[in-house]
Amino acid sequence: MRYFEDIVVGNRVVGDDRYTLTAEEIKTFAGQWDPMPFHLDEEVARQSPIGGLFASSIHTVAIGVKLSHAIPQEPMAVVAGLGWDEVRFHQPVFAGDTLRVEAEIHSKRESASNPERGICVSRIELFNQRDELAVEYKIASLLLRRGS
Amino acid sequence: MRYFEDIVVGNRVVGDDRYTLTAEEIKTFAGQWDPMPFHLDEEVARQSPIGGLFASSIHTVAIGVKLSHAIPQEPMAVVAGLGWDEVRFHQPVFAGDTLRVEAEIHSKRESASNPERGICVSRIELFNQRDELAVEYKIASLLLRRGS
Repeated sequence: MRYFEDIVVGNRVVGDDRYTLTAEEIKTFAGQWDPMPFHLDEEVARQSPIGGLFASSIHTVAIGVKLSHAIPQEPMAVVAGLGWDEVRFHQPVFAGDTLRVEAEIHSKRESASNPERGICVSRIELFNQRDELAVEYKIASLLLRRGS
Repeated sequence: MRYFEDIVVGNRVVGDDRYTLTAEEIKTFAGQWDPMPFHLDEEVARQSPIGGLFASSIHTVAIGVKLSHAIPQEPMAVVAGLGWDEVRFHQPVFAGDTLRVEAEIHSKRESASNPERGICVSRIELFNQRDELAVEYKIASLLLRRGS
């Protein structure tokens, strides 16, 4: 288990896993959580400014979370997620696109309110099969300190 | 349809819908997207610093997106989501909690790169059944302008 003290700022890891999105999955996820017509109907999407069926933003971040967990590394002693910042959707993620993840420790700091906790900020990047940055975000997590 | 010109900064809407989270749904969603032990197993969650089974961050934002769409108002001419900022998880959302949404137009600006588009930032707040702010975030959307 990696505690707050073990986290090294600048450390970068590259995920091995790939996630390929199908039209069916895009429509099912959007139907449940983000039912915009251009996530639900290929014909509407083709005629939209984006030009084709693409995944809901929240769907792509969910894939980022999933792929991040699958990075082969010792787990962090996470107590809870605190927040996300600068979540950016640079490229639409279309049906058939394949995503992969890279993660970097952006910063860390001691908790001001609890000496047994620390805060770690990771920067997550999702690339498509053309190595274009599709989605990126920073995620702040509350971690246990060693011996807490 | 509300185009960029129709968006009024400061306009606030309160959603009527409620969303109650079950333990089963928390575990199913987390199992697919965010398989942390404290989202999957009641006993592990009870012994964690949070003290009970609580929903994955990404799950709570998905509920925010869903509830936002259900607010009875004329739809916006959204081209695509651009990003989210200051996503904050203030309170754990436990099994049995019921969420509702409020949304406010935070700001808007013309697109610097495309005179046919504008950018609108909404602030979304999710409250639980005790009217505690559980989750909040700002969401930036690219909108069509009238006549574009």
